Amino acid sequence: MRHFRDELDELQRRLLEMAGLVESAIHSSIMSLVDRDEEQAKEVLWKEAQINQKDIEIDELATRLLALYQPMAKDMRFLTAAIKINGDLERMGDLAVNITERSMSLMREQQVKPLVDIPKMADLAETMVRNSLDALVKRDADLARTVLLADDEVDRLRDAVYQELLQFMQAESTTVPRAVDLMFIAHDLERIADHATNIAEDVLFLVKGIDVRHHAEVRE
Amino acid sequence: MRHFRDELDELQRRLLEMAGLVESAIHSSIMSLVDRDEEQAKEVLWKEAQINQKDIEIDELATRLLALYQPMAKDMRFLTAAIKINGDLERMGDLAVNITERSMSLMREQQVKPLVDIPKMADLAETMVRNSLDALVKRDADLARTVLLADDEVDRLRDAVYQELLQFMQAESTTVPRAVDLMFIAHDLERIADHATNIAEDVLFLVKGIDVRHHAEVRE
Repeated sequence: MRHFRDELDELQRRLLEMAGLVESAIHSSIMSLVDRDEEQAKEVLWKEAQINQKDIEIDELATRLLALYQPMAKDMRFLTAAIKINGDLERMGDLAVNITERSMSLMREQQVKPLVDIPKMADLAETMVRNSLDALVKRDADLARTVLLADDEVDRLRDAVYQELLQFMQAESTTVPRAVDLMFIAHDLERIADHATNIAEDVLFLVKGIDVRHHAEVRE
Repeated sequence: MRHFRDELDELQRRLLEMAGLVESAIHSSIMSLVDRDEEQAKEVLWKEAQINQKDIEIDELATRLLALYQPMAKDMRFLTAAIKINGDLERMGDLAVNITERSMSLMREQQVKPLVDIPKMADLAETMVRNSLDALVKRDADLARTVLLADDEVDRLRDAVYQELLQFMQAESTTVPRAVDLMFIAHDLERIADHATNIAEDVLFLVKGIDVRHHAEVRE
């Protein structure tokens, strides 16, 4: 079984690598917005292409391991978790591209307002991605739980962003298209955080065997 | 292996049942919006609770089958596809609830405009869910491809809805909060259609062995 353990390590290593790319794509997408920087936007597209490549490779590897070995209990749970985590990471890459597309259109316009909460949301989301993967590698339930808590903070910031932007739009109708773009960026960041939360939930299931999906009370 | 075949059929039956609930939740969410009907909104919440239950059951069943039998090639691909499809259906349930929450808040306000394109988007999305699951059951690649085409139409409608709502918001600032709610509803419908597209892509991979993810050109 030595070989199988190596393969599982390799799978985990690839997930970490993919998560690194995702984190960096989120970062570049928000840098492209804050600094109005086209080079950062191109970085996102380039990283997403690599993320998509890894998505396919990881899926193939996990499926091959399922087929080749007949893993029991914990290893089986790890492999099905890996397939789900891979899917969540891939969607985050898509969302970073969504953000970048809106950032590209905002670059050509005057800024609605200095950005404060959106970069904060992005920082939190990046940390959530990193921590959820660290929690996976270390099988650390406490660290996974910090991700669930951070998600509440992201939701709070998203609500604050919405309220502020609604006021801008109502006060000055020319800001409407740009404010809508910013709202969707906040929405995409919140979804990225949701995907990190999914990963943390998978880790909790893996470590503790408890299913925290659909049970908000466990998250308190 | 007779028993294994029965179990696979059972898994497929449960996915179909779940998809039926999802379809009906989408329908109720838009009915609650169009008819301003609180009873339909409650239906969505009730259906989503059942969807969440099924999500957990299907995951457990698929993982158990992976562990218990040592399925080869095609059966293995079906089981990993089932886990992904289950995830996509579950997210659609969440999105139907998102729509319903915005519909609940819109019920208390005057209507911005008669709804035409949003109900059309919902119809398309429901058909996409049904067809993607039918394509799975029948292993029908052509039917799966119709889902990919319908997704382009949903995107087109979403763009039309956005443009129209932007105009309303700019012309009359009091419509802004309600128009934003409608924009997010269109966005959620588009995401539901994306999840149906994911399922159709999984079916194509299952039937044809070709991976159409991240290859837009195959969709032409």
